[in-house]
Amino acid sequence: MTQHPLYQIMNPHSVAIVGASNDLTKMGTIQLLNLLGGKYPGKVYPIHPQEETVLGLKAYHTARELPEPADLAILTLPTSAVPEVLRDLGERGVRRAIVISGGFKETGEKGRELEEQIVGIARRYGIRFLGPNCIGVIHPAFHLNPTMFPYPHQPGSVGVASQSGTYVTQILRLLAKTQIGYSQAFSVGNGADLDLVDCIEYLGSDPQTKAIALYIEGIKRPREFIRVASRVTLEKPMVAVYVGGTEAGARSSASHTGSLSGPDHLYDALFRQSGVIRAYSVEDLYEWAWALASLPLPRGRNMAILTHSGGPASSLADACNRFDLNVPVFSERLQAKIRQLLPATGSTCNPVDLTFFIDMTVLLEKLPQIILEDPAIDGLLIHGIQGSSYFRSIAEIAKTRVKIPPYEKVKKIFFSAMEAFVRLPEKYGKPVVASAFDDREDDAVAFVQDQSLPCYRAPERAVRAMAALCQYAEIRSGK
Amino acid sequence: MTQHPLYQIMNPHSVAIVGASNDLTKMGTIQLLNLLGGKYPGKVYPIHPQEETVLGLKAYHTARELPEPADLAILTLPTSAVPEVLRDLGERGVRRAIVISGGFKETGEKGRELEEQIVGIARRYGIRFLGPNCIGVIHPAFHLNPTMFPYPHQPGSVGVASQSGTYVTQILRLLAKTQIGYSQAFSVGNGADLDLVDCIEYLGSDPQTKAIALYIEGIKRPREFIRVASRVTLEKPMVAVYVGGTEAGARSSASHTGSLSGPDHLYDALFRQSGVIRAYSVEDLYEWAWALASLPLPRGRNMAILTHSGGPASSLADACNRFDLNVPVFSERLQAKIRQLLPATGSTCNPVDLTFFIDMTVLLEKLPQIILEDPAIDGLLIHGIQGSSYFRSIAEIAKTRVKIPPYEKVKKIFFSAMEAFVRLPEKYGKPVVASAFDDREDDAVAFVQDQSLPCYRAPERAVRAMAALCQYAEIRSGK
Repeated sequence: MTQHPLYQIMNPHSVAIVGASNDLTKMGTIQLLNLLGGKYPGKVYPIHPQEETVLGLKAYHTARELPEPADLAILTLPTSAVPEVLRDLGERGVRRAIVISGGFKETGEKGRELEEQIVGIARRYGIRFLGPNCIGVIHPAFHLNPTMFPYPHQPGSVGVASQSGTYVTQILRLLAKTQIGYSQAFSVGNGADLDLVDCIEYLGSDPQTKAIALYIEGIKRPREFIRVASRVTLEKPMVAVYVGGTEAGARSSASHTGSLSGPDHLYDALFRQSGVIRAYSVEDLYEWAWALASLPLPRGRNMAILTHSGGPASSLADACNRFDLNVPVFSERLQAKIRQLLPATGSTCNPVDLTFFIDMTVLLEKLPQIILEDPAIDGLLIHGIQGSSYFRSIAEIAKTRVKIPPYEKVKKIFFSAMEAFVRLPEKYGKPVVASAFDDREDDAVAFVQDQSLPCYRAPERAVRAMAALCQYAEIRSGK
Repeated sequence: MTQHPLYQIMNPHSVAIVGASNDLTKMGTIQLLNLLGGKYPGKVYPIHPQEETVLGLKAYHTARELPEPADLAILTLPTSAVPEVLRDLGERGVRRAIVISGGFKETGEKGRELEEQIVGIARRYGIRFLGPNCIGVIHPAFHLNPTMFPYPHQPGSVGVASQSGTYVTQILRLLAKTQIGYSQAFSVGNGADLDLVDCIEYLGSDPQTKAIALYIEGIKRPREFIRVASRVTLEKPMVAVYVGGTEAGARSSASHTGSLSGPDHLYDALFRQSGVIRAYSVEDLYEWAWALASLPLPRGRNMAILTHSGGPASSLADACNRFDLNVPVFSERLQAKIRQLLPATGSTCNPVDLTFFIDMTVLLEKLPQIILEDPAIDGLLIHGIQGSSYFRSIAEIAKTRVKIPPYEKVKKIFFSAMEAFVRLPEKYGKPVVASAFDDREDDAVAFVQDQSLPCYRAPERAVRAMAALCQYAEIRSGK
């Protein structure tokens, strides 16, 4: 892995940045601010033709003046200035770069020639680079985020390679709502040198990456993709969105990254052959990768459903069948055990519906254990994770009329059940997927998500993530 | 409408509540707290066999002692106590009720008999009621929320009739993330007397209701459903989720609301015949109803796409084609106009991709106007609504190194564009649907949503809402 050309790009001890200045309206300036604000631990060398200092750092007028060959150079420049700067960097001994600048292949013939020119320069100096026309990379554990998006991002286990920079950066706002975290994430742009296949190969070898998410507009090297992806999916799940298979998607992709897309059915076959799970939206892409990166694989498609409300029970059950998961009627023996813990209005046969809030240890600890012990059950779907939000809502309306115990006291009781709950997947070697209409403002939802048990915002989303787990389990076992 | 049996249930001048006490662990107590906490303007009469006061209100030992026949009675009692209390209420002249208590038809033969018994009592006294086994109703504009869920809910224009109480109450936590608001919402439970069809009829006649969302486990009166729904959908869009069409969904529904569900294809035909749009998840149900309640209908399926980032442009374009929307190449004349406003790296043909943040008046005002003026375009999809969140993120990392203008100054500039933007649908009589990875923490997203322009959390969701608008436009025009 350390020998891979992307390793040095993701773990540089020094970064030269070309395009940053003291002008906050420039993209390069925001990138430098973000690199510094994110507490990047290495050395940073701004390169600027006129300025003596940039954002308080000593600036170098050209790359040739750098005090050392930086491990990585980042170029955010007008298109026409890229070739000369790349040459200067090569002369100074820099061997890794990210070219953020756009205006190349994606804009037509002239841009295509310019792109060939910078590939030629890179070859001459042995420079390996990402881009052009990309947004950069993010390696949270290394405090490396030289993109122009200073959004919260905690280390996680989903590796990303994307032909859209937005899906590496701006999507962090969406991912933060569930704390889906990157191991490492690449925006590959036009992929003139290092491309999607290189990123897959690298993420495949990265021990922090437990699942790989791909956003694809077109694959330049389909044979290589199949060769590398087939190998990686033997060990790690991969999910891909492909948007180039429709007329409008292909047209958009061509003008975005200059990608030559292909017919949808060809990509479908290519994914199938490579063991890659296909998703059709970016939400699904990340949400499925989250489950795949976090949970043990089910041995089969027999699911148990557990809730305290009937609507979500029915939605989960219906969605299971729609996505080819079974919801078997529990054995008489199992139902008898469950019945002892349920109110008279509850239903025991699967879905199990408690019908209203009772002892949280029943919902989160006792029932799941009884159910997951049954060898006929391969996984558990549960709706209704909830802690502080309901209590606080009640406290708000009740406070003038009733004495309310402090929340911390209540929390103590049900959090021991929560702690048992999040250990279930490891304890039984079976996946548990949750859903709740609350988000991380609720402490129970936040706790579950932080303990790597995916909790989705709606029941049907939980089912689709579970279906992805089943699909990958079958890919792994060669079914 | 005022003659409809549901009118008095939703607009009562006085409510008798049976099952509330001074014990906060009782469901009825929380319901009463919620009614009072929500500033319900009418009189409230707690009925309790022992207590003299309940939550500070004078309590009545039986319904027969009520000082007046309350407009509405709410019963949250052990199952076996319901018949006698209902009889007492009838004796006192009460003619509308909501029976929250479960343990009836949904639990088997004995419960079914009990349900028949309360129907008989109601008939004898002329009582019309919702339930049993329901969670109640919400009428935000009337400050009526006697459910046990004190969640934020502002008045809106989506009417709801649901066989799940969770999808009327707990789902408010999800709906609050986009401020989807109810006109009036019904949990119908077992529908022993007033049922889904009655609710549709009532919502059809309610002027505040612009679209109707249905969650269905089984329809008891299919002929009446078709008759009423066919009439209502001539004027108002309806969206339905049906979960009883799979083996597991049917089993879950039977134990939830005692519903007799039917084969999926029969319900599909029933919806088609009635002009009802079918959704397959509760998120879609509410999100589509939101668009249908808020926007003018498109005249055709030709969509324009506008963004400042290429990934979402391609996702929008691809999703359009997948959901049978066209993304036509703009005319040369239109492209020439657009080109004048775009940077060299931008693409003009549709999708229009600005490639990076420029003048917000271009993205939100000038380009949309030029595009929507074109008679060949029926609607606009736009990704990238963003205000305070990006600015504040930048300010956070920049503050120690650069002087940052106060946000209010920046906001002033782009909010005039925002104001023009939200007026587009009315100005051009064409739908505009937005998406953003930010939520309401961002002031631009909150503003757009508050001005009834739906802004979804991901591009593909915006497309599906637009597709629902097209579907309803075709239903209305008889295509």
